[in-house]
Parts: sequence; structure tokens; C-alpha cells
Amino acid sequence: MKYTPKSEIYTRIDCFKKKLTEADMDGSIILLNSDIFYFTGTVQNSFLYIPTIGEPVLMVKRGLQRALEESPLKNIVSIKNIKQIPEILHEFGYTVTNKIGMELDVVPFNTYKTYKKIFLQTEFYDISNLIKEIRAVKSPYEIELLHNAIHVIDEAFLSVPSFLKEGMSEVELASLFEAEMRKGGYSGSCRMRAFNQEFFYGNVCTGESGFYPSFFDGPVGGAGVSLSHPQGAGWKKIKRDEVIYIDYTCIVEGYSGDQTRIFCMGELTPKMVKAFEDAVLIQSEIVKAMKPGISAEEPYFMALKLAEKMGYKDNFMGYKENQVKFLGHGIGLELDEWPVLTKGFKMPIVSGMTFAMEPKFVFPEGAIGIENSFVMTENGPQRMSTNSDVITYVK
Amino acid sequence: MKYTPKSEIYTRIDCFKKKLTEADMDGSIILLNSDIFYFTGTVQNSFLYIPTIGEPVLMVKRGLQRALEESPLKNIVSIKNIKQIPEILHEFGYTVTNKIGMELDVVPFNTYKTYKKIFLQTEFYDISNLIKEIRAVKSPYEIELLHNAIHVIDEAFLSVPSFLKEGMSEVELASLFEAEMRKGGYSGSCRMRAFNQEFFYGNVCTGESGFYPSFFDGPVGGAGVSLSHPQGAGWKKIKRDEVIYIDYTCIVEGYSGDQTRIFCMGELTPKMVKAFEDAVLIQSEIVKAMKPGISAEEPYFMALKLAEKMGYKDNFMGYKENQVKFLGHGIGLELDEWPVLTKGFKMPIVSGMTFAMEPKFVFPEGAIGIENSFVMTENGPQRMSTNSDVITYVK
Repeated sequence: MKYTPKSEIYTRIDCFKKKLTEADMDGSIILLNSDIFYFTGTVQNSFLYIPTIGEPVLMVKRGLQRALEESPLKNIVSIKNIKQIPEILHEFGYTVTNKIGMELDVVPFNTYKTYKKIFLQTEFYDISNLIKEIRAVKSPYEIELLHNAIHVIDEAFLSVPSFLKEGMSEVELASLFEAEMRKGGYSGSCRMRAFNQEFFYGNVCTGESGFYPSFFDGPVGGAGVSLSHPQGAGWKKIKRDEVIYIDYTCIVEGYSGDQTRIFCMGELTPKMVKAFEDAVLIQSEIVKAMKPGISAEEPYFMALKLAEKMGYKDNFMGYKENQVKFLGHGIGLELDEWPVLTKGFKMPIVSGMTFAMEPKFVFPEGAIGIENSFVMTENGPQRMSTNSDVITYVK
Repeated sequence: MKYTPKSEIYTRIDCFKKKLTEADMDGSIILLNSDIFYFTGTVQNSFLYIPTIGEPVLMVKRGLQRALEESPLKNIVSIKNIKQIPEILHEFGYTVTNKIGMELDVVPFNTYKTYKKIFLQTEFYDISNLIKEIRAVKSPYEIELLHNAIHVIDEAFLSVPSFLKEGMSEVELASLFEAEMRKGGYSGSCRMRAFNQEFFYGNVCTGESGFYPSFFDGPVGGAGVSLSHPQGAGWKKIKRDEVIYIDYTCIVEGYSGDQTRIFCMGELTPKMVKAFEDAVLIQSEIVKAMKPGISAEEPYFMALKLAEKMGYKDNFMGYKENQVKFLGHGIGLELDEWPVLTKGFKMPIVSGMTFAMEPKFVFPEGAIGIENSFVMTENGPQRMSTNSDVITYVK
């Protein structure tokens, strides 16, 4: 297990403090696990206060021993009840009375109300976008962790031919693929920031399953094994000569890679092979065109134009009414980080930003395409996987 | 995949309408996936309106086709943008102007604010406790689904001797155990209602790992494989003659069972064997004493008293400062349902309520105990597992 270096943590905090100053805040309360991990290096049942000026204070309700061991923060103290927050902060010389930030994109209304009662004179402001901006640009340390995650999923993809068998169910294939990543260090729940979005590991869709829609905001749905979680691998048996689409996250040390690869037992139709090659072509054209500073919506528009020119108007990123309007998304501690490669998202993609790009096509006979995780460098996007962008044929 | 019967859905809705009437509400907006599933039988990107009088309306932003196929609701319509909600409801004859319920325990502050802008004249009230009350009592249909989930985890426990090996890591054992359940229909993300609580599958702790604390509000922590998700199975190699503690959820068709079983390659010390037997004894004493209508805090107090009498004051439900103050929790569509068997939770446990009860002890050399899922009947709690409450010794 990796301990986040002290310099890393304090650089992040300094960056956030600068943004708090610009936003005229006195400080911010941080509650969400992914943000707590980012700014402290530990995930406990805790409350973090980052003042605009001065040392942060991590107040731990459960897990103090681990917080002290895992986090390089100077001020880590025990707390029994959140009502004590003002008094503890006061002991550290902080009077929380004015403008305080809070992750109002995720903090439930009732939780907000509890804090309003504790901090009677405080106005809380949403600072979630400030955090998203900071987190969008990864440090070399974070990029190394992402590389590790992608290595684990690369290995899992290479192992597929050893267990893929005709007649097995999608969910059985999923179980074996997931087990490969899990024993490689898959950390746990896939974190998504958006309310009510859930993602469990990934997606195995075979043949017409790839055409089956889902509520999830992605190009490919899948039936799922239950109507309660209607997405991804289902009960369908895998047949010869059909497309086997495997799109998975791989979360290692908290950082999530996101990759898609295609398999087939037997042969695919020329139409599907051509579609795969076209998806790879779109990927390489986009990579060539993406220079640091490009607006995040540009790659989507370029890919859309290319796809339409190739004749995939009804198939690009979903089929007809189920098409989604993006080409990729930021990756890191959450699966829905910035930048989003979508219409209207004009953030420039600068060096250090990491994202998954997934040109895909959906047909009634299945979903096909490619997805790779990239990091933007001075020379353009660097592909993080060491596996090739090819269809793997299994006997 | 099971489709929730129409009668089931409408009984739940009628029950909720009655509570809305009692609370003097005009209706309620429902947004959370688990509640949406409960009241509609489908999980799409959607907004549900349940009026106090009249037919509910499910407005689907993404996944309309599946909603129409999966849900027995009469009014299922397409929606492009949440701003259309008032207009759509108006078409169905509903004017949303007064007191409207919302799941304010989970709805983020920013989402709440968006609804406030759309419904200018509406006051939103927290109805989460009304839903929790209804959901706490399961129908025979739901109890059957829970039985199915427990059958899947029972089978996974029985398969452990076939893959447990000396020297494998905890996470490798976890990966194989999880794969068994996954191929049996494990649905996806384990849903928890409390903000920031996460639970990924379950917990494999061996030997001293069971003593390692975590932020999670449970008796046993575990190191985890990463500081980002610091809980459950870690990298420790499994040795002979140490306690192997496996505590897992099993979510099938949305319903989660929760069970713990103990394994050992070789022999456990007499102290640990005695502790296991005492945990089973506490379980059976509590089961004997629990009659329908008992206050949910009573079993906790009774178990605590028994454990202290047995000499486990420092070990019951965690070690010393890491002890938790509960004996069990409701199970169903979420892992933290009502009733909670904890101090201060006085809800009577009535027929049809389902809960996991987990008397456990933690020692520096490991965690041991038992957990079973139960349903309260007229004759007391009925144990849902068909596996025995014994330590499984593996060669």
C-alpha cells in the first residue's frame, strides 16, 4: 500500500487555499471520501477543515489510529460529535463565522442543515468546482498510480483467453475477469461524484447484449443480472462468432483506469471488423489532433464528424435514441472527473490531465470499439496501456 | 431476472400514500435508485412523483424502453429536462404547489436547490423516514428474494474449502469468494443510505488483520488493499492455524443478505474456539428472547450483558476503543436499513422485518463470531441460512 507523500498532500492543499483566497472564502469543510483522501492521504470517518490561511485540521470520529499512521497532516485530532467542530477549530485559532466552502454537489440537504445549526453565523458556499479543477490536473505521482492501475487491467485482458469458454454466461466471464483485477489490487467501490450514478466494476456485453440500453450515461448498456442493477453483464450465454465487449474500470490505490477491449471466439463479420478498425482510426486521428490547451469539447465534435463521414451517424456512442453526447471523461479518484469530452465542456485540456477516450459503435448485433486511458503531455495525449488496440481472437 | 409484481408495487405505493396523508403532504418526489426500484420495479435515470391521491408518474430521462418493459406503473413518460416536471405533472392533473416530500437524507444540497428553483411555491419536506419505515417491513415476495440471496452466499461458503490455500493473500481468497457469488447473480454495487458510507462486497480478515481497525461502522475492520479504500481483505498471506473470518453481503435481485462464517486451515486455539461457541450461544439466546414487538435496542443490550458476563467486555463488537454499539442492522435493498439493533433505536421489531445479527469478538490475534440474516415471524426470528453455525476446518 502506498502512503501519499507529504509534499504531494501539501501541494494539493496549497493549490486549494489559493483558490479559496480567489473565491474570498475563509476556509472549507471537506467531507467526501474521495476529497478527504486527496487532501489527507487517509479515509476515515472524519471531518477536514482547510483554512485559507494556516494548517488544516483533520477531526477523526472513527479511525484515529489509522489517520495518524497514514496521513502526513500535522493536525489530526479525535472528535466524538460534529457539534464539537467549532470548539476544536477554535482551539487551533480558527473562528468559523463567515464564508465557508462545502462540497454542496454531494453533501445531502439534511447534512447541510446540521452544519447550518452548528455554524449559526456561517454562510456555506459550493466549492466542489474548485476541487474538481484542482483534481483534474494530476501530479507525476498520481500519473504513476494510474499507470499501475492500467497495468493491472492490461494483465487481466491478457488473461481472458485462458478462461473464456463458449456457453459460459456473461456474468461468469465477468466474475473471472473481475477476480483477476481484484487479486491484482482492485481497491473497492468505484466512486462517482454525480448523485445516484452507480458503477460496479464494468461491463461485459456479448452480441446483441451490447444493443440493450441502460440508464447509465455511457454508449453501451447491457442487461445486468437483476432489474435492481440493470447494467453490464447479464445471464446471456456467450456464443461463437459474436462480439465480446469488455469495458472495465480498474481502481488501484484509489485511482481508476478505464479500458475497453474486444474479444471473439471464432470470426467477426467484415462489418464489425471494419467498425473496430474505424474506432481505432478515430482514436488515432483525435490523438494526433489533440494538443495541450485544446477545449475539451473539440475531440467530441471531431470524432462525431469523422464517425458521420464514415457512415456511423446512427451508431456512434450508442444506437439512435440511446446515443450519448460525449467521447470520454476524466479519470482519477472518481470515474466522472473533469475534463469531460463533451459538447459544451470548454475547459482546456492541459498537461497532466488524465482521461479515458472511447470511440464506440453500437449495432443491433452488438457493441464494438476501443477505449484507452490517456494523460495529456506537452506533446499531446500519451496512451497509458501497453496492450495493443486489436481484437483478440480466442479459439 | 425477476419483474416485481404489479400488486407488490401498488401495495407499497398505497402504504406510502397513507403515510403522506398522515404527514399532510400533497405528494412526494422520489429520486434515489433504491427507492425508485422499490416503488417502480425499474431503475432508470428518472424522476418519480407519487401524489397523495392519484396515480404516480414516472418521468424517464434515459432508459424509457426498459422502464416501460420492467415497471407495472400506469404512467411512464419521457422527459428531456427536469424543468419539464411541473408541466408534465400538470398534464396528469397534478399541481405541485404546496407541501412536497423529498428524500432529503440523500438528495445533495445543489439538487435540492435546483428543485426549489423549478417549484417556486413548494416547500420540500424530508420523507426519508416514512420510506424507511415502510421498507423495514418486507412482503413475502421480498422475503423470498432475500432467501435467494442467502442461498447464493450459502453456496459460496460451501465452496471455500475447494480454493482456500495456505500462503494465498486475503484479497486472492476474496477474489475467488466474490467470483462465486458474482456468477450466482450478485447484482452490483452494495447500496448504503448514509452519506459517505461505502461497502464493497465484504470482508476477509485473517489472524491479526481482524484486529486492524477501520473507519467503517462495524465490529471488524481489516487493512484493505489500498489506503483509498481501507477496509476488508488486504495483502496479508493466509497462514495455518489462524482464524479466517469471512463476512459478506450477497445482493441478488437487489436484496442483500449478510452472513459471516469462520474457517481455519489446521487448528484454532481453545480460546478462539470457545469465543466462537460463545458467539453462537449469544445468537441463540437472543433468538429465543426475541418476540415480535420487541424494541430494536433490546437485543443489543441483552447481548452486551451476556458478553460481559462471559468475560468479553473488551472484545464484544470490536476491541476496546474500536467497539461499536450495535448487534445488527436491517437488510433489504440497502445494507443500512431499519431496524438497527442498537442503543436508542426503539422501533419495535415486527413480523416481516429482516435483519442481520452479528455477535462477534475481536482479539489481538483475530476476529471471530457469527452472523446470520433473519426474518421476524409470529414465532420469533427465523434464520434464513441453511448452512450450519460451525467453524469449517480445511486441510
